[in-house]
Amino acid sequence: MTLEFKLRNQTEAGGRRAQLVLPHQTVETPVFMPVGTAGTVKAVPQDVLETLGAQIILGNTYHLYLRPGHEAIRRMGGLHRFISWPRAMLTDSGGFQVFSLSALRKVSDEGVRFRSHLDGSSHFFTPEHSMDVQIALGADIAMAFDECTEYPAERGRAEESLRLTMAWARRSLDHFRAHREEVVWHEELGGKTQSLFGIVQGGMYGDLRRESAERLVEMDFDGYAIGGLSVGEPREATLEMISEVLPLLPKDKPRYVMGVGYPDEIEQYARMGVDMMDCVLPTRAARHGLLFTSEGRLNIKGKKFAEDQGPPDPECNCMVCRRYTRAYLRHLMHSGEALSGTLNSIHNLAYYLEIMQRVRASLEPAPEVPSQAGSA
Amino acid sequence: MTLEFKLRNQTEAGGRRAQLVLPHQTVETPVFMPVGTAGTVKAVPQDVLETLGAQIILGNTYHLYLRPGHEAIRRMGGLHRFISWPRAMLTDSGGFQVFSLSALRKVSDEGVRFRSHLDGSSHFFTPEHSMDVQIALGADIAMAFDECTEYPAERGRAEESLRLTMAWARRSLDHFRAHREEVVWHEELGGKTQSLFGIVQGGMYGDLRRESAERLVEMDFDGYAIGGLSVGEPREATLEMISEVLPLLPKDKPRYVMGVGYPDEIEQYARMGVDMMDCVLPTRAARHGLLFTSEGRLNIKGKKFAEDQGPPDPECNCMVCRRYTRAYLRHLMHSGEALSGTLNSIHNLAYYLEIMQRVRASLEPAPEVPSQAGSA
Repeated sequence: MTLEFKLRNQTEAGGRRAQLVLPHQTVETPVFMPVGTAGTVKAVPQDVLETLGAQIILGNTYHLYLRPGHEAIRRMGGLHRFISWPRAMLTDSGGFQVFSLSALRKVSDEGVRFRSHLDGSSHFFTPEHSMDVQIALGADIAMAFDECTEYPAERGRAEESLRLTMAWARRSLDHFRAHREEVVWHEELGGKTQSLFGIVQGGMYGDLRRESAERLVEMDFDGYAIGGLSVGEPREATLEMISEVLPLLPKDKPRYVMGVGYPDEIEQYARMGVDMMDCVLPTRAARHGLLFTSEGRLNIKGKKFAEDQGPPDPECNCMVCRRYTRAYLRHLMHSGEALSGTLNSIHNLAYYLEIMQRVRASLEPAPEVPSQAGSA
Repeated sequence: MTLEFKLRNQTEAGGRRAQLVLPHQTVETPVFMPVGTAGTVKAVPQDVLETLGAQIILGNTYHLYLRPGHEAIRRMGGLHRFISWPRAMLTDSGGFQVFSLSALRKVSDEGVRFRSHLDGSSHFFTPEHSMDVQIALGADIAMAFDECTEYPAERGRAEESLRLTMAWARRSLDHFRAHREEVVWHEELGGKTQSLFGIVQGGMYGDLRRESAERLVEMDFDGYAIGGLSVGEPREATLEMISEVLPLLPKDKPRYVMGVGYPDEIEQYARMGVDMMDCVLPTRAARHGLLFTSEGRLNIKGKKFAEDQGPPDPECNCMVCRRYTRAYLRHLMHSGEALSGTLNSIHNLAYYLEIMQRVRASLEPAPEVPSQAGSA
C-alpha cells in the first residue's frame, strides 16, 4: 500500500475533509495543486511555495520528457530531488499536452506519434511509455495515459475516444503495477511506491462519463480523476459532468478534477466532494496582470491603479499584499519587469491556497461535546 | 548635516573601513550597491535583497522619470515607499542613460534635449531639472548632472566635456542646496535631507581627472564619485584614473566609483580606498546565465552541467547554492523559465555582497590589546 486516504469528515453536501498520505508528504484535502510545468511553478521559488503552504505541486510529463528528459531526471534522483521540492508531487500522463501542444499527431490503438513543439523531433507515446516516463520522474502520483476529447465532440467521436482511453487505462495500470517498484526512491523510502490514478473521460455525455467511471473503478486504481473538463465547455456542463461522476467513485479513495478552475469553482467543487484540483489559471493570469482578490478580479494594468497605494487585496495577508502597492505592481507590469510575474503569481497562489484552507476549516468534523460527568 | 561619514580605520594601502550614516540606513562601507534600474533590482524581490544583506540600492533617474514619472513617485511618498525599500537608496543623475539609451541627443550649455527610448517623446534635461527629479524621487543620495565622455575621446573633446560637466556640477549644487528641504520625507525624518555627490570626469586623461577632482572639492559636495569609467577602456586605464583621483579627495567624505565591476575589481578598488561601487554586472550576467563563483566564471548553459548535481558554487552559502543544483539552474535557463533569472541573480548578488563583507572584515581596526594590569 502506497497511498492512504484517511477520511475525517463528510458533509451532507458531499464535501470531504481528509488526509492523503503520500510517500513525500501527508496532504490535507481538499487541496489545490499549483502547476509546475517544466519543473518550476513559473516565476515562484520553491521556498516561497513552501511559505505559502503548497503541499503538492504538478509536473508535466510531456515537458519534462522533452527537456531535460526523464532518464536524466531519474539519474539525478527523480523529480523531487532535481527541482528541490521535498513535498508531494503529481505528474500528468503527457496526454493532454500531446493533444494541445504538439504538431502532426497520429493516434492509433497502439499510441500517439507526435512532433515536439520545441524542435519538431518525432516521438511515440504509448500507455506503457507514459508509465515508464512517469516512473522515471518519480512523482508521488502518476496518471494513466488518456486521450483528451476536444470540445465540442460529436457522440461518435466521444465514444471512440472513450474506448481508446479505457484500453489505455488498462494497459497503463498493468504496466505500472509491473514496474512500480523501479521508482528511484523505492528503497530510500522504505519500500513505498508511486500511486496511479485513472482518468474518467467521455466528453460532455453523462452516460459515457458514468460508463467510464464504472469501468475504471472495476480496474481498481489508487485514485480517480475527472479529465477533459475546462476545454471550452460552459460551466454548467463542467458541473454536470462532475455531478454525474462523483457518486460512482469509491468513498475511500481520492478524487481529482483536472485543470479547474476559477476561485469560486474550486470552492464549489471542493464542497461537492472533490479532493484535489490543479490549474494554471492563478499563475498564467498573474503573468498577464490579472489578480484574484476578495473584491473580485483586478486587472493591475489599469490606469486607475497608477497611484493606488492600497495593497492588491485589502483582505489578503500574503507577503505581496503586506508589502507592495497596486501602483507598484502596475509599474512593474508596465515596465515589463520580471518581478511583476513573480509578485502577481505569489499573490494569486496565496489567494487560491487560502481559499482551500478556509474550505478545509469549514469541513472539519464538529468538535466532540465533552460529557458533563466527570468534567468538574 | 545630512550625511555622516565615520572613518573607523584606514590601511596603509588606502583601504577604508567606515560607516556612512544616511537618513534611511547606516551603511557599512566599503559597500556594493545592487542596481534597481526601474525601481526593482531585476527579478529579485525586496525581501530577498534584505536577506542577502543589501544595504543600499540604486534607482535610475532616467528610467523613473520616464515611467512612472517623478511627480507620481513624489505624490506616493518617494521612491523608498513606492518600491517598499526601507534601507538606503541612491539615484544617478540621468546623464549616463541620456547618453547611452536615448536617441537624437542635442547637448548645449543649457542642458540636453533627447528622445525617450520608450516612445520617442522629446525631453529636456538640465542640471536644475535633474535635481528637481532626484529630489522628487527622494533617494538618500543624489548625483550631480554630468556629461559622460565616450571612449575613446580625443583630448579636445574630453576638455570640452569636462568644462560642461564642471559648469553643470556648480548649477546642480546651487539648485540642490536651494531645494534640498523639499524632499518628501524631510519632516518625517526630523529635518534630514538628501546628500549630493559631485562626479569626477575627464576621460582617460590624468591631468583632466585631477583638475576635475580639485574643482569639485572646492565646491564642497557631500561626497565624490568617479564617473565615466567602465565605458570600454582597458582595465589598466580604469585603475590609473582611480589612482590619480583618490589622493585628491577629502578623507572625511565618501568616495564612489560608478559602474564597476568584476568581482576582483570591486575588491581591488575597495582595498585602494573606494567606499562605494555599483554595477549591473551581477544581475545582467545572471540573466545571461553567467555565474560568478569561487571557482571562477561559470556559464550555466554549458552542456557539461546537464547532470551536475553540485551547487552553483561549492564555497557559497547563499539560499540558491544551499538548495539548487547546477543541473537545475541549467534546465531553467534552457527552458526560458523566469525562475532562472531570479535564482542566478540571487546567487551573483550574494557573491558580490559576500566579497564586500569579507573586505570589510579585513579592514577592521586591529583589536586593542588589553593591558595586563588589572586583568586578573
